[in-house]
Formats: sequence, structure tokens, C-alpha cells
Amino acid sequence: MSTLTVVGSIAFDAVETQTGKRDRLLGGSAVHFSLASSFFADTRVVGPVGDDFGEEEFAVLHARGVHTADVERVPGGRTFYWAGRYERDVNIRTTLQTDLNVFEHFEPKLSEDSLNAEVLFLGNIQPSLQIAVREQCAGARFTALDSMNLWIDIAHSDLLRAISMVDCVLLNDGEVKQLTDEPNLVRAARAVLDLGPSVVVAKQGEYGAAMFTRAGFFGLPAYPTENVIDPTGAGDSFAGGFVGYLAAHADQGEFSEATLRRALAYGSAVASFNVEAFGTERMQTLTPDEITTRVSELTHITRFEDAPIPLRA
Amino acid sequence: MSTLTVVGSIAFDAVETQTGKRDRLLGGSAVHFSLASSFFADTRVVGPVGDDFGEEEFAVLHARGVHTADVERVPGGRTFYWAGRYERDVNIRTTLQTDLNVFEHFEPKLSEDSLNAEVLFLGNIQPSLQIAVREQCAGARFTALDSMNLWIDIAHSDLLRAISMVDCVLLNDGEVKQLTDEPNLVRAARAVLDLGPSVVVAKQGEYGAAMFTRAGFFGLPAYPTENVIDPTGAGDSFAGGFVGYLAAHADQGEFSEATLRRALAYGSAVASFNVEAFGTERMQTLTPDEITTRVSELTHITRFEDAPIPLRA
Repeated sequence: MSTLTVVGSIAFDAVETQTGKRDRLLGGSAVHFSLASSFFADTRVVGPVGDDFGEEEFAVLHARGVHTADVERVPGGRTFYWAGRYERDVNIRTTLQTDLNVFEHFEPKLSEDSLNAEVLFLGNIQPSLQIAVREQCAGARFTALDSMNLWIDIAHSDLLRAISMVDCVLLNDGEVKQLTDEPNLVRAARAVLDLGPSVVVAKQGEYGAAMFTRAGFFGLPAYPTENVIDPTGAGDSFAGGFVGYLAAHADQGEFSEATLRRALAYGSAVASFNVEAFGTERMQTLTPDEITTRVSELTHITRFEDAPIPLRA
Repeated sequence: MSTLTVVGSIAFDAVETQTGKRDRLLGGSAVHFSLASSFFADTRVVGPVGDDFGEEEFAVLHARGVHTADVERVPGGRTFYWAGRYERDVNIRTTLQTDLNVFEHFEPKLSEDSLNAEVLFLGNIQPSLQIAVREQCAGARFTALDSMNLWIDIAHSDLLRAISMVDCVLLNDGEVKQLTDEPNLVRAARAVLDLGPSVVVAKQGEYGAAMFTRAGFFGLPAYPTENVIDPTGAGDSFAGGFVGYLAAHADQGEFSEATLRRALAYGSAVASFNVEAFGTERMQTLTPDEITTRVSELTHITRFEDAPIPLRA
């Protein structure tokens, strides 16, 4: 099985929605990512936790075969904490509290096993740390990163440098535009490709995702989910499914457009499950058959055959 | 050739964008719609104009074979006027002025030929007028309507009644949610289907469109357009391509899911051209070959083939 290392946050989330409230959900980008990627690749997670992170939380990761040897426990520290509320329209969310805690001074330390992974995913952390990790994983066959508006604002040149060092960038579509100061997504994505990566994925939330490569464009609508309970981590699950699927094909060398497209569908399918319950709950019960079935559904709901008719000139 | 009647606004638009400014563009929902539908069906346009509407404007419609016998000239009146500005991000627009003029007291009067069209499109006008027209066109094989937030707010029950009388509703996705007071699009669209129509199309602007039928769901990303000059009328061109394509298949009786999906692709393709120039300029030079080529491109940029791999349980 291919090997994949993800570096990012490990968190406790407090989430309020119209349907319920949870005080202490396992969360964080590296957690959501690794639970998703664990279906496709042997995944190692690198991130910091505090004394409050216990066996129960590790058990969730271990149940999916995720390696946690590089989860760094900071003595006397507390785990990153995020609290937020979703409105009746779950696309609107308010952050109520963010305590970086041990995440504030996190410096990733990767074991030999993590350093030697075939595929590396740099979750949303300070771009200078992404660069440092990327440099250590010189042998990775495929590398990707995520980021956020904060780093685009305050660490712009570091982020551009980090982007120049990876094969793939995953960002929200608004972030792709913000990063390049270009309001047209097609031009914005092309500007990111010009920085070095061969793949740019623009996540579009309830609308799906768009993928740009030098060879072309792929648009994938989101799976039409009726019951969105908690959208937290959907983007990370998406990335985990996408990068995980690619990791499973890392022996291909350069990925074909067909493989990249399929990967996006797997990412989208996994993300559509993530939102069906609070925190990681749905991912903990998810089965390979459910994923495969949903990808097949995605194929059907996006397909049309042209049948040209004579048009009036 | 199938026959199609569209009732709606005919306008002069003044448009400011980052790339230029035009004071007097031919516009209005019925104009944008009919130029698009003219590629597929013999189109009759019903709407009011003032003394300021002249041969030059009629010539644009006639050049595409659109019948204007039911364009009502109101003596002493002025044509509906809209002025707006688009930001650098063309998804953001500000209305600078709206003068309803002759459109304010418009009461559609349809000739025999218009009444007997196989397909009827009720553009965005007062729902009570949509109802009156729909009742007169009792023999139409397929009927569709558009509306807007204003009518959802101030003429809600009339609009629900109008919707119950048509086969298809086309709205922006935000309007589908607003109409049903349901923030989840899937549930919202289902609630609209429950009102009577068999097809609900949610227009999603730069993200594409989603179509809901009792049989299922179809998601279509927008064609990735790099040069958006003027988005005015894109939704109407979309509707014109979609309904026009269906009109060309009106002899099928009930439309198959495959036909409806193709129709959406044609609507999307035509709309993607509309935005490439100011007002109706691009539609005036558009050719059947260009449309066919773009639909074919849409097929390619949305297609993926699944290739299931063993996933780790």
C-alpha cells in the first residue's frame, strides 16, 4: 500500500448547528484529512496535541489504521481548540473562539518513516513550516498543499515559495482569486500553475470543485446532499480523498488527466459523507462500498451525451 | 421547425464594466432569451417598447428570424431602461437606475400565432400576468417560467399558483431557496417539484446549473470563461438555449432525462457566449458551429470514468 504523510492541525472543535451542539469533537485538518486518506493509502499524521488529547482520540485514528507515532504531545499544553456556529444555511458560519494552544509554536518533526512517504500533504499551517517540511521530504513522488486567507495576507511571499515547491495546490476558489489578485477563476488558476504546480484544485463548497492542469479543465458538481449536519472538515476530507486516491496510484509517475479526475470524484464523495454527522462521526462508520457507490452516483449525475441537431444559422 | 413564444421585458441597458461603458444596449429578458432560442425554434417575442425603440433594434431580432409582430409599441412611451455597474469581480453588480417606463403597465396581448406556439416561456414579469398568459396558451406542450426575488417577496401566492401551472421553473439557486424558505438546495428544489412542475433548474452563475426532476439530479459546471465582458442577460440566454433545445424536441411528448440534460448543456453553452461581449453583440455573430463545438467541449470537461480500486476497510 502506498505511503502518505499529512502535516497539519489536530483539534478539539465545539460546533453549534440548528440541529444540535457538541462541545468536544475530534477535529483539525490533519485528522479529517487522514481519516479520508486512510481508505486509499497508509497514512501518517504529523501534528501537535496537548495533555487533554487521550486514548479515545487516538483510537479513532488507529481504528482507520492511521499511524500516530509523529503526533507530538506537548507536556502541559492544551490541544488546538476551535468553536463555531453554523446558521440554518450551513454555508454561513461564525467562528466563536480560536485557541491555538500547542499549535501556536508547532514545529513539525518527522520520523524517518514519515519523511520517506511517497506522497506528502502539507495541511494549512504557516507557509515557512510547509517549506521546511517539503525540503526534508525531498524524495516524495507527489506533494500537495492547502492554505488559507490568513497566510495569503500575512505570509504572501513564503506562500508563493511553498507553492512553487509542490505538485498540487488545493484552495477554496475565493482563495485562488485572492492569492493572485485575479477575480476570474480561470485566469487565477492559470497564474497559480505559472508558479510551478501542475495541478490546481479550487474547492467550491456546495457547488463542487474545479481542477486546472496544463492539459485542461475539469468541473465536478458537488454530490447533492440533503442532510448537512456539520460541514466542518469537509474541505480536508475532500483533500484526503483526492490526495489519497492519487497516492494509491503513485507508481504511475506523472498522473494522467483521467486519474486526476477520478481522484477528484473520490475526494468529493468522501467529503459528502463527512458532512452527514458531527465531527469525525460519519467517517468512523464509513465503508469502502459506500464510497464506491457514491463515486458511481457522481458519474451518473454529471453525465450527458451530446446529440447534435441542426441549428438555425 | 418548432414554435416558441416568449413573454418578457424588452429594454435598453446602460452597462459599466472595468473594460468599458455602453449607454444604450439592446437588452431585456425576452430579447436575450429569443436570440438564444432562435437557434433552435421559430421564436415569437411578446413585450412592450416605447417610441425610442427603432428599426435598428428590430433588425437585431429579425436577423435571427425572431418574429416581432407581438412587440407592442406604446405611443408616447419610453422603453424599459436599466443601468448597472459591474465590479472587477463581475459577479458583483450594482443597479444604478431602473425606469420601468412602458413595462410598468404592460399587459401581454398574444396574437393567434403566439397563442398557438408549442412551447411557452414566461419571462420574469408579474406572476398574475404569467398566469393570464399561461391560461390563454392552453394548448402548449411545454411551458416554463422565470421569476425574481421581488415577486417572491410581494406576490408570493400568485407566484406559487403560476408555478403550479407550468412544466418547468428556472430560477437562480438563491431564489429557489428563498421561494421555499429552505436553505438546502436539494430540499428546496424538491419543494418546488411538489408544487407541480416536473423540472426545476437552479441557475448558479459562474458555478453552472443544477437540474432536479422526479427521476433525479443533474449537475453541470459552467463553461470556464476567461473573458467575461458583460454578464447581463446570461441567465436569459441560458433559459433561451435550454427551452429552445427542448422546443426542438417538443414532438417527443414527455422529455427524457437525457434530452433535458442535453438541453441544459445547450443553454449553458449559449450563455457562455452571451457574456463575451456587451449586450447582444456576441449573440449577433454567434454561429451554430460555435454552439455545437462548445457543447462538445462541455461534454469533455465534465466527464470522468470511474475505475474502482480496492479500498482499505
